[in-house]
Amino acid sequence: MSLQEIFASRMSRMKASEIRELLKLLDQPDILSFAGGIPDPALFPADAFFEACGVALAPDKQAQALQYSVSEGYLPLRQWLAEHMAGLGVPCSPDNILITSGSQQALDYLGKMFLSVGDTALVGAPTYLGALAAFNAYEPRYDQLNPEGNRTAESYAEAAGVGRVKFAYLSPDFANPTGETLNLAGRERLLALADELDCAVIEDAAYQALRYDGEPVPTMLSLEIARKGSLEDCRTVYCGSFSKTLSPGLRLGWVVAAQPVISRMVLLKQAADLHTATLNQMAVHQVASTMFEEHCADLRKVYGGRRDAMLAALAEHMPEGVSWTRPEGGMFIWVTLPEGVEGSKLLARAIETERVAFVPGAPFFADGSGTNTIRLSFSNSSEADIAKGIARLGRLLRG
Amino acid sequence: MSLQEIFASRMSRMKASEIRELLKLLDQPDILSFAGGIPDPALFPADAFFEACGVALAPDKQAQALQYSVSEGYLPLRQWLAEHMAGLGVPCSPDNILITSGSQQALDYLGKMFLSVGDTALVGAPTYLGALAAFNAYEPRYDQLNPEGNRTAESYAEAAGVGRVKFAYLSPDFANPTGETLNLAGRERLLALADELDCAVIEDAAYQALRYDGEPVPTMLSLEIARKGSLEDCRTVYCGSFSKTLSPGLRLGWVVAAQPVISRMVLLKQAADLHTATLNQMAVHQVASTMFEEHCADLRKVYGGRRDAMLAALAEHMPEGVSWTRPEGGMFIWVTLPEGVEGSKLLARAIETERVAFVPGAPFFADGSGTNTIRLSFSNSSEADIAKGIARLGRLLRG
Repeated sequence: MSLQEIFASRMSRMKASEIRELLKLLDQPDILSFAGGIPDPALFPADAFFEACGVALAPDKQAQALQYSVSEGYLPLRQWLAEHMAGLGVPCSPDNILITSGSQQALDYLGKMFLSVGDTALVGAPTYLGALAAFNAYEPRYDQLNPEGNRTAESYAEAAGVGRVKFAYLSPDFANPTGETLNLAGRERLLALADELDCAVIEDAAYQALRYDGEPVPTMLSLEIARKGSLEDCRTVYCGSFSKTLSPGLRLGWVVAAQPVISRMVLLKQAADLHTATLNQMAVHQVASTMFEEHCADLRKVYGGRRDAMLAALAEHMPEGVSWTRPEGGMFIWVTLPEGVEGSKLLARAIETERVAFVPGAPFFADGSGTNTIRLSFSNSSEADIAKGIARLGRLLRG
Repeated sequence: MSLQEIFASRMSRMKASEIRELLKLLDQPDILSFAGGIPDPALFPADAFFEACGVALAPDKQAQALQYSVSEGYLPLRQWLAEHMAGLGVPCSPDNILITSGSQQALDYLGKMFLSVGDTALVGAPTYLGALAAFNAYEPRYDQLNPEGNRTAESYAEAAGVGRVKFAYLSPDFANPTGETLNLAGRERLLALADELDCAVIEDAAYQALRYDGEPVPTMLSLEIARKGSLEDCRTVYCGSFSKTLSPGLRLGWVVAAQPVISRMVLLKQAADLHTATLNQMAVHQVASTMFEEHCADLRKVYGGRRDAMLAALAEHMPEGVSWTRPEGGMFIWVTLPEGVEGSKLLARAIETERVAFVPGAPFFADGSGTNTIRLSFSNSSEADIAKGIARLGRLLRG
C-alpha cells in the first residue's frame, strides 16, 4: 500500500527544490549567504507589532482578534489599503480588495481561478520560481512573456493549442530574480497584448515599495485604469504584500481587481482556508496606518546602501565575461556567468571552498534553461559582508 | 471584456452559499442565533494569548516571530503535537506533522493532492459543507459514505466510472452538522473498506476534544496503527484543529500522516502560501503547552451544560413529528422536520416572526437532498437564550 500511487496527476509537477536541501545548510555562521530573498529581521518594526498585538488582544478587542472573521478580510485594513492604492493611481473601494495570507496565496488562488489543465500561462524567462510552483498545481503549459519583444497575439494563441492563454504573470518592479523593471512602453505593450489575447494580467508588486533611485513607473493596473476609465473594466489583477516592508512571518498580502474577480476569489478563499488570521490583520492595520511610509523610507535607505555596496563589489571583483543587472530597487542582482559555467556546480564549490552562497538561476526558468545564471540577494547582509562575500565569489570565478 | 468568461472550469462549482447573505443579517441584537458553528469568544484564553504574543515579540524572539519560517511548521509546536497525538494512541514524530492554517486548509490540500477531475470522494450525507466546498475546487464526483450500511467495495469502485475512489472523508466524533459519533464497529468497517478500495481515509477531528459524556472511541488513525503496526503503513490522514479549543481567529490546525504523505503536503503548502504565520505558531505553542488540557476541561463544562439545555428545551417544545440527534460532544444538534417542511423556508419565517435563527440542512448534502433538516448550534448561546430560542422555534413549528 502506498498512497503516492493514487495521488492526483498534478502531484507529478510538485517537485522538491533541488537546492532547498543545500540551502538548509546555510545556517552555519561562517557562511556569507546571498541566497535567501528575505528581509533583514533587524529592520522589522518589532516594537510596533508588540504594541499592536497588545492593543488587539486587550479586553475590548480580544474577542474579535481571536474569533472567526469574514473571508474578504478585516474591513479597516481593506479601507486603509483602498487609500494606499489610490496613492498608487488605483482608485478603488474595499470591495475591490481581498486580504490573502501573503501574496504567494494570491498566486495560488489566481492559478486556481484561471487555469484548467493545459491552459497557457505567460511568464518571463526567468520568473519568480514561487509563481511557477503555485501555477504548476493547476497543470498549465507555459509560454515566454517578453514585453520587449515582437511576438504577436496570434503567435501566442496558436501556440496555446487546445487550451488558451489565461494570463500573463509578471513582477514589473525590481523583479525576483532579475531585479529589473519593465519600462512604461513595455507595460503599455503588454496591456495591448492582453487585450488582444483577452487574457488577465497578474501584476506581482511584492517589491514595489522598495525603489532606491530612478523615477517610479506607474503600476500596470493604474495604466489600465487610465486606458479603460474604470477598475471595473480592467483585466489586471494587482497582488500586494507586506512581506518585504513590515513582516513576512505574519503572512499578509492583498489583491486588487474588479469586483467580479474579487468576489470569486473570496469564494476560493472561503473554501481553502476560511480567512487570514484576524489578529494578524488587526496588527498589520495598526502598524501600517501609523508608520508605513516612514518605515519604508528607512528600509530604502538601508537596502539602497546594500545594493550600492554589492554593485561596487561586483565591479571590483568580477572577472571578464561576467555581467549583472543594475536594479533600481528590490532585493536582487542577477548575474550571468560565462557560457558553460553552471550556477549549481558553482554553488557547491562556493560553499565548500569559499564559504559563500547564492541561488543558482536555472530553477527560475520554466524550461530549465539559464544554467549559467545566479541570483544574489543584498537585503540581509551588511555592507561589510557584501564586500567580503563578493570578493570571495570573484576569487572563485577567477580561480 | 469579462474575465469570468475565461475562468477555469472548476469555478462553475464554486458557488456563493445561498444562506450566507441571510446569515449576515444575524448581527441584529434581538435575534437569538443558533446558526454559526462558532466558539463562545468569552471562553477564549485571551489573557494567555496576550502574554504569549508578548513573549514571542520580546526582543530575544521578535526576529524569529516576524520572519519567514519553514513550510512544515514551527518545530516546538510539532514536537508538542507529537506528544499530544501519542496521548491519542498515535505515536509519531514531528516529521509526521504539518502545521496548516486551520484544518480547512488541510482539506483543501488533501483535495489537491488526491483528486483529479472526475475522481470520487466518499462523503457522508450530510457532511461538513466546508469539506464539499474545499473538494469542489478539484471537480470530483461524490458517492455516499455510510459505514453503518452494507455497500461493498466493488459497488463503490464500479460507480466511480472512469475515475477512482481516492478517499473517504468523515468527522468521526460529534460531526458537523449532525453531532453524531461513529462507533468502533463502524470505524473498523470503514478501515476495511478503505483497504479494499485502496483509498485514503481523511479523519477530520475538529471537535474531538469536546466530549461531554460517554466513552471516547479511539481515533481512526490509532485503530489503523493497531491493525498495521506503524503509522508509516497507514492510509488514514488525521486533521486536527485549535479552532474549537483555543482560537479560530489565529487559523491553526495540523495534519498527521505517514511521512511520504506529509512531505508531499509540505510541497503543496510551500507552493500555496509558503507557511503558516510564525507568530501564530509560537503563540499557540506557548498557550497549548501550558494549559491545553485544563482549558479544554473548562470548555467541556460550559458547552456540555449548553448541550443539556438545548436537549431539554427540544424535548419540551418540539411538536410531534420532529426528531433530533443526542450528541455526546461538539457544538451541534441536527433536527429532522416533518416531511415537506423546508428548512430554508422555515428560516426565513423564523427570522421574520420569531427572531430566531439556525442553518438549513440541505447545503450539507452533496446531492442537495435533506431539505427537511436544520442544524442548531448550542456553543455560542447562554443556557437562558437556548431555552428562550428553542421555545420560539417550537411555537413556530406548532404554529
